[in-house]
Amino acid sequence: MLRFALFGAGRIGRMHAQNLAADPRVVLSYVYDLAEEAARETAEKHGAQIAPDVEFVLSGDKVDAVLIASSTNTHVDLITKAARAGKAVLCEKPIDLDIAQVNRCRDEIGDYKVPIQIGFNRRFDPGHSALRTAVAAGELGQLQQLVISSRDPGLAPFDYLRISGGLFRDMMIHDFDLARFILGEDPMEISATGSIQIEPGLAELDDIDSAMVIMKTASGKLCHINCSRRAVYGYDQRVEALGDSGMLISGNRTSTALERYDEKSTAAREPLLNFFIERYTESYLNQITAFIDAVENGQTPSPSFEDGRRALMLADAAGESLRTGQTIRLSFE
Amino acid sequence: MLRFALFGAGRIGRMHAQNLAADPRVVLSYVYDLAEEAARETAEKHGAQIAPDVEFVLSGDKVDAVLIASSTNTHVDLITKAARAGKAVLCEKPIDLDIAQVNRCRDEIGDYKVPIQIGFNRRFDPGHSALRTAVAAGELGQLQQLVISSRDPGLAPFDYLRISGGLFRDMMIHDFDLARFILGEDPMEISATGSIQIEPGLAELDDIDSAMVIMKTASGKLCHINCSRRAVYGYDQRVEALGDSGMLISGNRTSTALERYDEKSTAAREPLLNFFIERYTESYLNQITAFIDAVENGQTPSPSFEDGRRALMLADAAGESLRTGQTIRLSFE
Amino acid sequence: MLRFALFGAGRIGRMHAQNLAADPRVVLSYVYDLAEEAARETAEKHGAQIAPDVEFVLSGDKVDAVLIASSTNTHVDLITKAARAGKAVLCEKPIDLDIAQVNRCRDEIGDYKVPIQIGFNRRFDPGHSALRTAVAAGELGQLQQLVISSRDPGLAPFDYLRISGGLFRDMMIHDFDLARFILGEDPMEISATGSIQIEPGLAELDDIDSAMVIMKTASGKLCHINCSRRAVYGYDQRVEALGDSGMLISGNRTSTALERYDEKSTAAREPLLNFFIERYTESYLNQITAFIDAVENGQTPSPSFEDGRRALMLADAAGESLRTGQTIRLSFE
Amino acid sequence: MLRFALFGAGRIGRMHAQNLAADPRVVLSYVYDLAEEAARETAEKHGAQIAPDVEFVLSGDKVDAVLIASSTNTHVDLITKAARAGKAVLCEKPIDLDIAQVNRCRDEIGDYKVPIQIGFNRRFDPGHSALRTAVAAGELGQLQQLVISSRDPGLAPFDYLRISGGLFRDMMIHDFDLARFILGEDPMEISATGSIQIEPGLAELDDIDSAMVIMKTASGKLCHINCSRRAVYGYDQRVEALGDSGMLISGNRTSTALERYDEKSTAAREPLLNFFIERYTESYLNQITAFIDAVENGQTPSPSFEDGRRALMLADAAGESLRTGQTIRLSFE
Repeated sequence: MLRFALFGAGRIGRMHAQNLAADPRVVLSYVYDLAEEAARETAEKHGAQIAPDVEFVLSGDKVDAVLIASSTNTHVDLITKAARAGKAVLCEKPIDLDIAQVNRCRDEIGDYKVPIQIGFNRRFDPGHSALRTAVAAGELGQLQQLVISSRDPGLAPFDYLRISGGLFRDMMIHDFDLARFILGEDPMEISATGSIQIEPGLAELDDIDSAMVIMKTASGKLCHINCSRRAVYGYDQRVEALGDSGMLISGNRTSTALERYDEKSTAAREPLLNFFIERYTESYLNQITAFIDAVENGQTPSPSFEDGRRALMLADAAGESLRTGQTIRLSFE
Repeated sequence: MLRFALFGAGRIGRMHAQNLAADPRVVLSYVYDLAEEAARETAEKHGAQIAPDVEFVLSGDKVDAVLIASSTNTHVDLITKAARAGKAVLCEKPIDLDIAQVNRCRDEIGDYKVPIQIGFNRRFDPGHSALRTAVAAGELGQLQQLVISSRDPGLAPFDYLRISGGLFRDMMIHDFDLARFILGEDPMEISATGSIQIEPGLAELDDIDSAMVIMKTASGKLCHINCSRRAVYGYDQRVEALGDSGMLISGNRTSTALERYDEKSTAAREPLLNFFIERYTESYLNQITAFIDAVENGQTPSPSFEDGRRALMLADAAGESLRTGQTIRLSFE
Repeated sequence: MLRFALFGAGRIGRMHAQNLAADPRVVLSYVYDLAEEAARETAEKHGAQIAPDVEFVLSGDKVDAVLIASSTNTHVDLITKAARAGKAVLCEKPIDLDIAQVNRCRDEIGDYKVPIQIGFNRRFDPGHSALRTAVAAGELGQLQQLVISSRDPGLAPFDYLRISGGLFRDMMIHDFDLARFILGEDPMEISATGSIQIEPGLAELDDIDSAMVIMKTASGKLCHINCSRRAVYGYDQRVEALGDSGMLISGNRTSTALERYDEKSTAAREPLLNFFIERYTESYLNQITAFIDAVENGQTPSPSFEDGRRALMLADAAGESLRTGQTIRLSFE
Repeated sequence: MLRFALFGAGRIGRMHAQNLAADPRVVLSYVYDLAEEAARETAEKHGAQIAPDVEFVLSGDKVDAVLIASSTNTHVDLITKAARAGKAVLCEKPIDLDIAQVNRCRDEIGDYKVPIQIGFNRRFDPGHSALRTAVAAGELGQLQQLVISSRDPGLAPFDYLRISGGLFRDMMIHDFDLARFILGEDPMEISATGSIQIEPGLAELDDIDSAMVIMKTASGKLCHINCSRRAVYGYDQRVEALGDSGMLISGNRTSTALERYDEKSTAAREPLLNFFIERYTESYLNQITAFIDAVENGQTPSPSFEDGRRALMLADAAGESLRTGQTIRLSFE
């Protein structure tokens, strides 16, 4: 039995606790949250104990692994402490909003050979994952172009946006990771454009709500990502891969396959599954299963800390391109 | 150059004249219509002459072929005269509403070996035709089940319905022919049900507006057809074939591939192509091409007079089943 | 806490046990199966006890409800005993293969006012259910036609087919119930056709593997159902409803929204979800939730014992129509 | 009757001649082509005369309009001469590969107020056009993002590629025009990336076969275009528009609505319509109709000479961005 501690019992943390509970190889032993009431509720539901603080959980042989679902600014500290204590780590994205912090964390934990997985759950979505598997298996011959559309159903609350790190580091970072995952190599160049078309108030945050990037890898593969903070028709999540011998599209999901025909339109489907917890239900579950598999079998989990770091570097480069009007060359050192 | 006479210059006749004009192997020499003004207009448009009467056209060596698009009750007379005069015949469906008349016509024209083709244009629709070709080529292995949905966008005018011969002989007759074409053998049994759900006034005509039949062939293939006189979402025309190794569906057509996504629905397409002249544009054109090909190459045209006769017998059997509540066994003699 | 006993710990029984475990209002107290090993495994997994026999479970105040997932020939006996003991009953379909038995059971249990629900799970499928809700809400205006396609991915083992009761009572019975559910009234007439096109050995069982029926309700609504014991492209489950103001189609489900484009075909989707436990995962879960809701709230569960009885009567009438070549009129007394 | 001269009787020229013939308001009076045999064939087919040279056609009152379908390097000269002679002009895209030439032409013809339309036929495709009409009518509220995918089915012959002007000026120029048409304003910034992934030999031409651009308009609208010289699944032509209140997709076209289901895949459609003359049949026809309408009604045709010039400027800017790794700002002066 793998003993887990959960750090963070908010909405995402509770979902992770539920998914842990579904795996017979795992027991949730401790829950920690600054908001003790939230911790208590989740702990009680899953027969876990409330932890008085992080150090208590990590000291001694109380748990084997930690799941970090607390706020972004705590991630680096918790990863570092958990790694030092020899615990396996599954940490929500992003590692941090500051690449310098991430680099320091990387240097610090370099010596502790603990399994670390970053929560880019979309890699585990059945559709996106089947697309990537087919690409990796050569079903398309050589991959040539990748197009990712990623649009939220509606603007997040302004208080969240204020601390989100901005569109590239908060939202498109998921797509940067997915792009690297499917491309099978790193982008070496990136250009970005963006604007405010939805929420004028973002100007004061120096943020945008609509963005497009194009990237090129060393071997010449091209990739486009577009993001919008609001698509009224639902959570729009599509991946399209073009290769020598065809194209694959991982399309949107609806809750049923119901189609409507009336005087005005035909074959109309329902709104898209909405929002990430519904749309990516399976991917969140598969992500934890993959982590547990890796830990149990002594394999390196994926996406790795380095994957998390590179996705952030792409987000930062996109921001730089937007500011400077230059194509940014990446080195990932 | 194949010289044609057109009998009937109504809506359908004019469309046929247009399609004849598009074939470089053909010239439209004469147009005849009781309504002389209609005849004149079509004749002028295509550089043809107005015929004073049918006998004039058929006498001597004025034309090689006739296209009969006049009202149903003239078909048998015109087919007979044209056959007697040695002209090739392309006649709109149905041959006649009265099977006794059709049988007499068959006996009468039996000795004249002229090519006769009945206007079941749906055989020539690119989708339905590709489905049939695939079935005939064994792409499904053995064909097992056939499902045809056939729904008009709206009720025809009551004056037309009054002389239409009823739903089975006017409307489902198309589907009976299509079924025989795809099944590759004759149904031996048919059961029908039907009701008035759209136009109560049909009761006085002893007609229905909604119908379903099931049929079985000698080898055990099953076939279902459903018809409705009104589908508000457009002209609904689908064929589905199930076999040992798969299924084929010839689906509906829209004028563009535009999809709409909004707060209420996603992937909504336009209304269906509407009505038969738009939906079956290509099939009407292909039908005439096939007729000209057959005449030029001395081949027997298809669908044949006998095909027209059997489709009518199926329509009559459906009517009998509806009246008697019995499964009707067919012999086609 | 509603205390359940599970009768039958085969494949379906185990799935039901899992679904019961997911509902916090319920505890699985006892498991009974002739095969004690199967009972033990399921009991242990869910912290239940093995029951020595049925009478033990039903005596005294040990449970509030029973879930009957044992073989069909035990259903009537178990329903009767459970009803007599005052337990709520959720029983897998069909109630029995013999309508006389079902009628006797009905008479016997008439006095015991226990909640009884029959396991026609498809009523609870999100797509089919949304279609029915829309129809009942008048979204189509008056419903006119209903078309149900219901095809298994592959032939069941011969040993099962031998005791299945035949295609109408084993397989199409699901669709008869679904039809009644959506039509909102009973069919008054039915015609059936069928044949052996897949497994010649079925002749010795006097059974068929391919069937089509058409039905008409008192108000004139028409319904078609087609069944096949084998569709190589997967478990084909579609419902289509035509009404005054449009059409609704509850289509097939695939595990992802992945589309493939290559030199031979475009927009190709994956095989259909396969088989009932995967395709109807949500419906089985929703079914139990609905039963628990009804029991907790003192409401009459649906589908009821009478629904189960009428679906069987339709299956029997289909068989009679197939044998006699007559349209059968139904009375449901 | 509008009297036309056709310059260029190659594949495209012949198609235009056919479309002219379909319009009753028009007569094709002269055909000119360096290859006299080609001119003769087209002239005979449509009852036109062969012109000995361009000057002959343009002198005097022989024609009202010219359709220029000769090779790109003749366009500027022919436009200038025709304008000087007061003839209306419909000229194939591009105006020229050299923007300096185009600018000179603009200056030269500035005084002759003849109607000039450039052959960006995609504006007239029923799907793309319906999308644009909906956007212009505000169906999406404010337009925010535009994504255009534009992929040829296979590499053009190398001899053509050598003189094509390169991917941006030969191929993506269509999409630049379509983007401007739908955006309703000019892009002010463009970044491009591209590579050789299909035909290594393009390196010697300093050309690419795969490209992506992103653009931004003054009001902040974003646009992405991707092009590939080869998509084995057919001629891939899609336009997607995201706005405040929804999304519109003008999707691909197939010749039928046939779907295939087998053991490996479901709902598979046919390959895409292929190539431009088939895919854009209607748009080529509508384009000529629009030109004739404009000339007859004394309206300014669209797309205009200036539209053709701006599309070329975007193509040049894309090339410059690719070479320099800079986002290029556009002024269109």
